[in-house]
Amino acid sequence: MKIVTKIFCLVLLPFLIAPPATAQLQPADYSQEAQQIIQELLDDKEGFQRLTKFVDTYPHRLSGSESLEESIDWIVEKMKEDGELDNIRTQQVTVPHWVRGEESATLISPYKKSLPMLGLGGSVATPEEGIQAEVLVVSSFDDLQSKSEQAKGKIVLYNVPFTSYGETVQYRIRGAIEAAKHGAAASLIRTVGSYSMQTPHTGTSSYEEGVKKIPHAAITIEDAKLIQRMTNRGKKIVVNLQMDAKTLPDAQSRNIIAEIKGSEKPEEIIVIGGHIDAWDVGQGAMDDAGGCFAAWQALRIINELGLEPRRTIRLVMWTNEENGLHGGTEYKNMVKDNGELENHILAIESDSGVFDPEGFGFTGSGEAFKMLQSIGTLLEPISAGEITRGGGGADIGPIMREGVPGMGLQVDGTRYFWYHHSPADTIDKLKESEFNKCAAALAVMAYVVADMEPTLPRES
Amino acid sequence: MKIVTKIFCLVLLPFLIAPPATAQLQPADYSQEAQQIIQELLDDKEGFQRLTKFVDTYPHRLSGSESLEESIDWIVEKMKEDGELDNIRTQQVTVPHWVRGEESATLISPYKKSLPMLGLGGSVATPEEGIQAEVLVVSSFDDLQSKSEQAKGKIVLYNVPFTSYGETVQYRIRGAIEAAKHGAAASLIRTVGSYSMQTPHTGTSSYEEGVKKIPHAAITIEDAKLIQRMTNRGKKIVVNLQMDAKTLPDAQSRNIIAEIKGSEKPEEIIVIGGHIDAWDVGQGAMDDAGGCFAAWQALRIINELGLEPRRTIRLVMWTNEENGLHGGTEYKNMVKDNGELENHILAIESDSGVFDPEGFGFTGSGEAFKMLQSIGTLLEPISAGEITRGGGGADIGPIMREGVPGMGLQVDGTRYFWYHHSPADTIDKLKESEFNKCAAALAVMAYVVADMEPTLPRES
Repeated sequence: MKIVTKIFCLVLLPFLIAPPATAQLQPADYSQEAQQIIQELLDDKEGFQRLTKFVDTYPHRLSGSESLEESIDWIVEKMKEDGELDNIRTQQVTVPHWVRGEESATLISPYKKSLPMLGLGGSVATPEEGIQAEVLVVSSFDDLQSKSEQAKGKIVLYNVPFTSYGETVQYRIRGAIEAAKHGAAASLIRTVGSYSMQTPHTGTSSYEEGVKKIPHAAITIEDAKLIQRMTNRGKKIVVNLQMDAKTLPDAQSRNIIAEIKGSEKPEEIIVIGGHIDAWDVGQGAMDDAGGCFAAWQALRIINELGLEPRRTIRLVMWTNEENGLHGGTEYKNMVKDNGELENHILAIESDSGVFDPEGFGFTGSGEAFKMLQSIGTLLEPISAGEITRGGGGADIGPIMREGVPGMGLQVDGTRYFWYHHSPADTIDKLKESEFNKCAAALAVMAYVVADMEPTLPRES
Repeated sequence: MKIVTKIFCLVLLPFLIAPPATAQLQPADYSQEAQQIIQELLDDKEGFQRLTKFVDTYPHRLSGSESLEESIDWIVEKMKEDGELDNIRTQQVTVPHWVRGEESATLISPYKKSLPMLGLGGSVATPEEGIQAEVLVVSSFDDLQSKSEQAKGKIVLYNVPFTSYGETVQYRIRGAIEAAKHGAAASLIRTVGSYSMQTPHTGTSSYEEGVKKIPHAAITIEDAKLIQRMTNRGKKIVVNLQMDAKTLPDAQSRNIIAEIKGSEKPEEIIVIGGHIDAWDVGQGAMDDAGGCFAAWQALRIINELGLEPRRTIRLVMWTNEENGLHGGTEYKNMVKDNGELENHILAIESDSGVFDPEGFGFTGSGEAFKMLQSIGTLLEPISAGEITRGGGGADIGPIMREGVPGMGLQVDGTRYFWYHHSPADTIDKLKESEFNKCAAALAVMAYVVADMEPTLPRES
């Protein structure tokens, strides 16, 4: 539905008569537009259908893959067909190109059993015949240190229960490095996830200059616990690990960029988006096609309602968030080089899943925080207006570190780490109504910040 | 803990002075024993540890497998070592011997993707090169009928959402038969489960005399929905199915039987148990090692407390519930032949998982129902005393059909069909506290029915 009548009755008197430092946004001034945006998006059918078709058609979008580039072509084409957004373009980004290949893990002793697994991004392969070795179970890097003498030639299994992602993911990121330092032949982690139905989760991992690169993979929570229990009973655990993974020469990918050009201050930019790349398992529906498409929907609806924000709203779908962050980094380099960086008023990312939205986490000045809280009240009708301190996103991290205020859409995270980087991150886990609410929250926030009289202040 | 002092103060005056037809059990008469049983079991550590070790050691217990027979040996040995139960023995049972072999399903068109799958018990194999065919998606047997002309040579996929087990399982049981009648080359079902993280569920299936046997397997909910959506978009779906399954000659297995012999009426029997066989995926922890071990714990604690029920409590771990029910049938034949059938006062089965217990479902006379409700009040301290009409269990079905009153332990079933017959049915899904409560509910119910003055009446 296209509403061409622009609402002109935007009265922002308080900002005109008070100095910016004490200016208070009157959210009521935007209540009509917010209501329209919310209503349009809650009623929308097209966005979620489009998302569904996209992930069904391009489920695997790992950097370097043809599938990722085809998926980018599809979006750019759809944007051009729509004819709704300005300045549709892509930004070239050089990305790593890791390929999983065939892989398996098999419990050999005390009995034979297939272990569902996923190699971790960036891992090297095993020799063709695999690595068959006794397993040393450790509960932490400290525990590994204390068992250093037993690690040589073994497969180290980090059986670390999920606490927070930040805490637990260390074993995915640095597990191979630390195990190799103690002479291990390979390393396994208990999958980084908060629930499992024999579900392994992949994700990126690292090596360190001067430390031997050993194969690194995730097994399920169930099997990590099983191996722990059998170890506790004094059983000797032997696993055969076979991985065919390789890192090919860097490849070319693209950030997708499109805009609603500002009507009065087009040089001032509110950037909003998510990342278009995804792991090579599941569909990357939640992580993060959903975030990209919710942001896209936000711009589409602002345009369809005929709203013409003073400032530019720029949609970016970053590439290579998962295993390199080159999309976010190259975007920062571009806007730094072309002078746009200073005019980035706010960066908003949706990369926590498109479940029931709760609000936004914000990193920026106290004054800006208050203004955003005020805008948040416009989202009370969908209970998505809570603004909390701290937040952002991986892709907007590079520009945030250059001083751009950043926000992350916050949603009900109950099941996020059930699906994250796993074969279970599929479209059926998402709900149209929740996706639409996420799009509405993004749209209201982006539109009001882009249109309000005062510019959202950076650090004051 | 062994308490040798028998509690003699069991006053059952109401039963002695009133005729059986109107006799009311005074549950308060057993409140002391019930409290003791509950307390002992809630504090128990050994039962759940034993269950854990059992399923870790013998995860796959499909009829005909060595692993099932080894697991039976282990239990019989432990029972003899314990020295707690009387008349420990096994009953020979001839069982089917189906073997899964290597298997896979691959989406070929519109793109290549591995489809997590499980062949269904009893299925025939595909030819060595597999069956590669277009997929015809149907929503029901009626829908298949209406699309009969399109079915020839296709792989029929029953995309039937889970409603109740009874309703949905028809497609697992009869899916191959009906698809073959319409000329299909093979059949797939959307897995019979209420939740999925790319989790296929196996289970038994049937063929019909005179109808061609075609391969039959389950794919995940996610993939069934994906194939449905792509079909709706007009895509041609091609799948390659490879199955190596075979049915070998019948094999020998055993029911395990052990008792607490009745002190006054040893010929009257309360039989209680679950099934010891399980599918060849996961650990069969919930289905049904948990039920067997909870019942075993019930007898162990009754014995350890020095309680000596008037009637015999007989523990049976039936074999071959999953794909034949020969254990339950042979048990019925045995007790019919040896005259014990008429003296089966009550049969209690636990085969709904050992989650938080809620009570029992009962099939029998109205008078017995009232008495059992009265006993149920003893389980109020653990909120497990609700007695509802209707209930039993597959293994006790054959004796129930001969007139034996039957009961099934009812538990919180929220996640039962998440794990049922799937790789996710592992011990980590169970809680010691809930398992112990199940054992307590079984123990109190079995003990009071075995000990109370009046005999639980059959149909009045």
